This record gives sequence, C-alpha cells and structure tokens, in this order.
Amino acid sequence: MRKVYIGVLGFGTVGQGTVKTLLENKEDIQMRTGTEIEVKKIAVKRLDKERNLTLPSHLFTNDPYEIVNDPDIDIVVELIGGIEPARSLLIKAIENGKNVVTANKEVIARFGRELLPLAGEKKVDFYFEGAVGGGIPIVRPLKICLAGNRIYSVVGIVNATTNYILTKMAEEGWTYEEALKDAQSKGYAESDPTYDVEGLDAAYKIAILASIAFNSRVNVEEIYREGISAIAPIDISYAEELGYVIKLLAIAREENEMLSIRVHPALIPMHHPLASVRGVNNAILVHGSSVGKVMFFGEGAGSLPTGSAVVGDIIDIARNINFNCTGRISCTCFTEKKQKDIGEIISKYYMRMKVKDQPGVLAAIATCFGEEKVSIASVVQKRQIGTSAEIVWITHPSRERALRRALAKIEKLPVVEEVNLILRVEE
Amino acid sequence: MRKVYIGVLGFGTVGQGTVKTLLENKEDIQMRTGTEIEVKKIAVKRLDKERNLTLPSHLFTNDPYEIVNDPDIDIVVELIGGIEPARSLLIKAIENGKNVVTANKEVIARFGRELLPLAGEKKVDFYFEGAVGGGIPIVRPLKICLAGNRIYSVVGIVNATTNYILTKMAEEGWTYEEALKDAQSKGYAESDPTYDVEGLDAAYKIAILASIAFNSRVNVEEIYREGISAIAPIDISYAEELGYVIKLLAIAREENEMLSIRVHPALIPMHHPLASVRGVNNAILVHGSSVGKVMFFGEGAGSLPTGSAVVGDIIDIARNINFNCTGRISCTCFTEKKQKDIGEIISKYYMRMKVKDQPGVLAAIATCFGEEKVSIASVVQKRQIGTSAEIVWITHPSRERALRRALAKIEKLPVVEEVNLILRVEE
Repeated sequence: MRKVYIGVLGFGTVGQGTVKTLLENKEDIQMRTGTEIEVKKIAVKRLDKERNLTLPSHLFTNDPYEIVNDPDIDIVVELIGGIEPARSLLIKAIENGKNVVTANKEVIARFGRELLPLAGEKKVDFYFEGAVGGGIPIVRPLKICLAGNRIYSVVGIVNATTNYILTKMAEEGWTYEEALKDAQSKGYAESDPTYDVEGLDAAYKIAILASIAFNSRVNVEEIYREGISAIAPIDISYAEELGYVIKLLAIAREENEMLSIRVHPALIPMHHPLASVRGVNNAILVHGSSVGKVMFFGEGAGSLPTGSAVVGDIIDIARNINFNCTGRISCTCFTEKKQKDIGEIISKYYMRMKVKDQPGVLAAIATCFGEEKVSIASVVQKRQIGTSAEIVWITHPSRERALRRALAKIEKLPVVEEVNLILRVEE
Repeated sequence: MRKVYIGVLGFGTVGQGTVKTLLENKEDIQMRTGTEIEVKKIAVKRLDKERNLTLPSHLFTNDPYEIVNDPDIDIVVELIGGIEPARSLLIKAIENGKNVVTANKEVIARFGRELLPLAGEKKVDFYFEGAVGGGIPIVRPLKICLAGNRIYSVVGIVNATTNYILTKMAEEGWTYEEALKDAQSKGYAESDPTYDVEGLDAAYKIAILASIAFNSRVNVEEIYREGISAIAPIDISYAEELGYVIKLLAIAREENEMLSIRVHPALIPMHHPLASVRGVNNAILVHGSSVGKVMFFGEGAGSLPTGSAVVGDIIDIARNINFNCTGRISCTCFTEKKQKDIGEIISKYYMRMKVKDQPGVLAAIATCFGEEKVSIASVVQKRQIGTSAEIVWITHPSRERALRRALAKIEKLPVVEEVNLILRVEE
C-alpha cells in the first residue's frame, strides 16, 4: 500500500475540522485503510492569520495552484466554499488527474453537471459527503446502500440555522427576530442571514440529494423557495394546538416522472420522525420502494462534524487509489426529469387571517374556497384583535393553483383585513 | 462493463425480498451501476413449495453447492440463516473465489473472525449490510463515512420484536404476555420468542457493530444479556412519571481500551433520540469524536427492507467486479480489546421493591445502599399492595458490583418482601 498525499484548499472552519480529524486519528485511520494519509499542503488566503489549529509553516501556501498542479498530490480537498475560485480549482485538479473531495454545496448543485462527468472521463473520484447534512452519512447511503430502491421522496431538515431559530421560537416563545439575534450571537447565523433564512442553503442541498435519489439533473433556479421570516410565535402556538410543529423542510418527490422540489416552512404532525429534530441538528427522511422510510440524523454543520464527512471521503478514495479503482462511482444523473410548478402540487394548507368581526364573514370566505373547489377541514376563530378577529383555516388536500385563486378573491373581500400567513401541511 | 451473475442461497422472507427488489428495479439498477445483474440460480430446500414470488422453475435447485461451485457465478448471496449449512457454504464460496453477501448475523457474529480474513486472502468482497437493522444503512456508514472518527459508543434499538412489545405495553397498557401474543399473531414474534425477547438477536447485532466501530474481535458469549419478560406495565408507568421510557437497548462503549457491551432493557429520557422509536422500527445512535451523535433510523426487519440492504451490497460488489477491485474493504478487526465485566460498569439504576408497610423500612434499606456507597437520587412510595408497600428507588451513578452487593443485603432484610425489578438508566 502506498502513502496517499492530500492537499487542502481553504483552512476555515471545515478545513481545520478536517485536518484536525486526520491528525488526531492518524493511527486508527492508517490501520483501517492500510495506508498512510499525509497532508502535504494547505492553501490559505493569508499566511499570517492566527488559527486555532497550529501547524508547521512549511505546510502552508497562499497559491492554491501550487496544490492542484503538484504531481505528488493524490487528493485535492476543496473547502473554500462559494463558486469562484473553487470551481476553477476543482476543474484544474480533475484535469490534472487528481481525485477530489469537496463540501461545497453551491458548486455541486450548480456545476455538478460539468464537474462529475469530467471526473468520470478522467477516472478520478469526486466525493462530496460533507456538502449535505454536515457529518451525517447521506450521500454514500443514497448512492450505494439504497441504490436498489426506487426512491419516492427525500424530505429533510437540512439547514441548522433555521431549525435552531424555529426551535427557540417554539420552546422559548421568542419572536423570529429574537431567535435570529440569539442564533447570530452564538455563531449559528451570519450577520446577513438571507442565505439561510430564505432557504437558499437548503435549496442547494435538496438539489444535490434529489439529483442522486432520482438520477436526474436538477436546476436549482427552478426550486420553489420560501423562508421562515414571516412566521410568528402565534402560528407556532396554533400549530401546536392542532398537533403540529413548524419546520423548514426541503422536499423532493418524484411523481409521474416529474420532480416536485421545494423548500418552505411546513406544519408536520408531532409524531412525524422529523418533528423531534431540535436545535442545530439536521435529519433526512428517505422513502424508498423496498426500504420503506429510513432517517439519518445528526449535527448538520460545524467544523468537526463536516470534517468527519470529508475525512470519510478521503479514506474511501485512499482505498480506491490503492486498489487502482478510482472513478468506480461516477455521475448517476442519467435522466433529466422536469420540475413541477408549485401551482401543480397537492397539499393541505394552514392559513391565518385577520377579518372584520361581524356576521357573514366566514360564509363569504368559505364561498371563495368553495368556488375553487378547495375543501375546508376546519376553521377556528382565535384571538380578538381590537375590532377584528383572527381565524385559522386548515384545508383538505387541494391543488395549490386553486388555493391561490381562492385567496386572490378572498384578499379582495371588504371583510378581510389581512391574510397573514399561508403554510403547507405535510403528513 | 460485463454482466454480473448472482446465486441466491435460501428463498425465504429475505431471499424473496432481495430477488423481488432486483427484478422490480432492474433497469434503474443497471443504469446506476452500468452493469446488468442477473439472478442465475436460487437454492431452496423444497423445489415444490408454493411461494409468493413465482419465477421460472429452471432458476431453482435444491443443491446449494450447485451455486457455490458454479464458475459463472460472481456473487453468492447467503440468506439461509443459522450456522449450518450457511457457514460451510460461505467458506466454500469464498474458497472458490466468489464474492459473498449475507444477512446472517449469527454466522458473522460468531465466525466473522474466520470468514472475513479468508475473504481478504482471496481478495473477494464479504458484505453484510442486511445483518443489522434491516434496510437501515449502518455497516457501510460505520466502515466508510465515519471511519475518520474514534467511536465512543454505539447504542441501538436493534430488535424489532421487543420494541414492538414494549411500544404496545406503553401505548396500550398491555401486559408483556398480551403484547407478546399480539406480536406473534402479527408475525413479529416467533412461537418460541426466546431468541428475540431474551436479547440474543440483539447481542449478535451489537457484536457486529462493536467489532466494526472499535476495530476489535468481539466474543458474543461474553456479552451481558437481559431480556424484557420481567417488565410490568407498572414499571412503564413509573418510568413515564419520572420522564423516561423503557427500551431494550444494545450498548457498546469503549472505555480505557476495554469494551462494555451489553443488551438489556433500560430507562432512557423522553427526549433521548431513541425514545421516540416506536413499533417494529430500529435505530442506531453512534457517538464519534468528530461527528458527534448521529442516528440511523428505519424498519429493522422484514422482507423488502432487508432485501434493500442485500441489493445495496450486490450493487456495490458489481461495481467492484467491473473495476477489478473486489476485496478493497476487508476485515478491520486489527485489535482484540477485552470486554468489561458487567460488575464494572457505572450506571444509574431504577429499582422496584415490595416491602412491609411499617416505620423504619426505608432507613434499613437506605443503610444497605449507604454501606456500599450507592448514592440514592430519589425514593418514592407508590402503591399499597395489601399490607405491603411498593417503593421505587433511583440511584446516582454507581458501580454495578456495589449495587449488587447492597441488593444482596437488602434481599435478606426481614422487612423486604421482594425486589421486583432492577433496570439500568441510560442518559
């Protein structure tokens, strides 16, 4: 067995978690793989920056091309994040015949369609277990363990920031703003939280999972997205009274050879396997034709958990290098299934509205629903707000397009002051 | 890519689930692997038996050696179960250079130490994802995805029968006997349920998981086992009042280079990730140095779920065959760690006793605990039973040996009528 050399691009949170994991468990890893894995070089932006993990200075370079062009390096580990220069470096590394590990969800979701086939051509490995769900094994289980299944759906809580915020709102009664501020102070949310709270991060992740599960390219731009900022503590209370919790879900389903992929908050029943996923944890529920429902749960982000996934990939490639079989699992996107428009989905809905507190209001609204064939499961009058009343509707499964048509009419009714929130209900 | 031929030994529940999965998703599997996988032969005991899955008669043989000696067959899939003839057939198959898939927990737990090194010598694959947790991916995630971690513990609900029984006792208020009868009528328990309810099945499974997690051979005979038949509905109620649920756990921990492996019912806090695992589901919680806690959840048994795991293994081997790299992951038991005696473990304990209802009883019992340095967290007097009282104790973490010494004294006290149940409390 020959020694395997790796080069690391980027030495931020995940880069340090990866190198720390490799160094701390060096002996065990060597025994498990039969191979010594050595970090030859680490590319950083600033050589003089202070870091938590102190390493000999000869390991560092500020020229990432020194790594991707180094003939000794077997595996390039890209942990810079973002599109450029990550994408160009990955392409160059693959063209140079290097195996690649990355945790860069954005590059994979948007450019996987060019990177993976290139890796296939060059017969190198391109692994990205760390791109989804932090340290939770999900990419490899989907690609190998569950490969005998027709996958019906993948539904996940894949963004730690928003799950932390929603957990705090539910458990502490905080507003969205209070919970966000707390998440920011703990380092769970960025100062500009848009990427997380508007569901962009989750959209990249579900695009990756859907492309594996359904063997199809997925256009991220077409994924329907809704964030969590409109949710009020009162919605969480109302949901709870109805036996539900509110979670930001990333959903991918195959229906009649089309894909329904979306990221939005939803009510899920209290006994749903995803309902008890609290704080910064993530979980992914996969429904397959033979396996039934399986769930993968764990810390969804962070230095060491994501480092764990990256090191798992490195170990797998080290074995492949020594058995001369890199590239044995290449791109499996052999179809291009279309995405369904959000208007086409069928779902139950939760709606909270503020209306004039007078007779005939319910009848007027119910007529609008009825005209569009949206069937109502329940309607309850909640708080009194001044001279207005707050009412909450739950529908039976309805087509979203019909619901939206009904709501357009309802919003024009003089007795309706505001439609505050509409959430989908997933069973 | 060349076609891969498989031979199946045994065509019971899992055998049929495996072949059904292979046939139903043939096209997808072929696209995913780039290889056609064909079932060449199936060995059965009785050729004339009626089966749910009808296949052409030329596929069947009643001579399993026709399969293990067939030069065309690449992968032998052993789904007979039990030690013999399974073990001899596996050895012969490996000696003939065939790759092997099995879901036979007993053979692996007891004879993995001879089978896996033999497979390594012959450079063939020996996979057994279906042996633990039905369709839940756990063996491969442990061997690859989490291979960068030092594993601290693996704790699982790995027996569907007992989890079904305990769930029904908790949710329906049934006695153990009632729940067992119901499980038997639904096919979840055998007419002789010993293998499941006394924890033997779980012991094989945790032996397999521990050997992977800790890279050590594990002697199944040394695993401490306790079954669930002594648990009464009242214990489940008392546990609930204290904020716990009772589950049959399979536990493996590494502590100071020694292994603590055991199967027994335990109280776990209501918010523990394993607490919400209901019915015939299984879940395995792995605690690793980098990944933190990750959990794998799903149906723990059954024809199609286990078939899903077996087919995942077949697909992985088919890829290895075509890349000429079978045997790339071989035995990783490179140490032989000793198992700790159960007396050496430190745990909290739940104890239910029947005592004379008179002054001074608590003091007498508490004195025995105190003498052995077992510290009490709480004691509550529960029901009155005739002239006796029922009391429930919870200890602080104590060494089991000390607790047992205290209990030996307590059982001799004239005021103590019966020590009904002792359960460990896992946090």
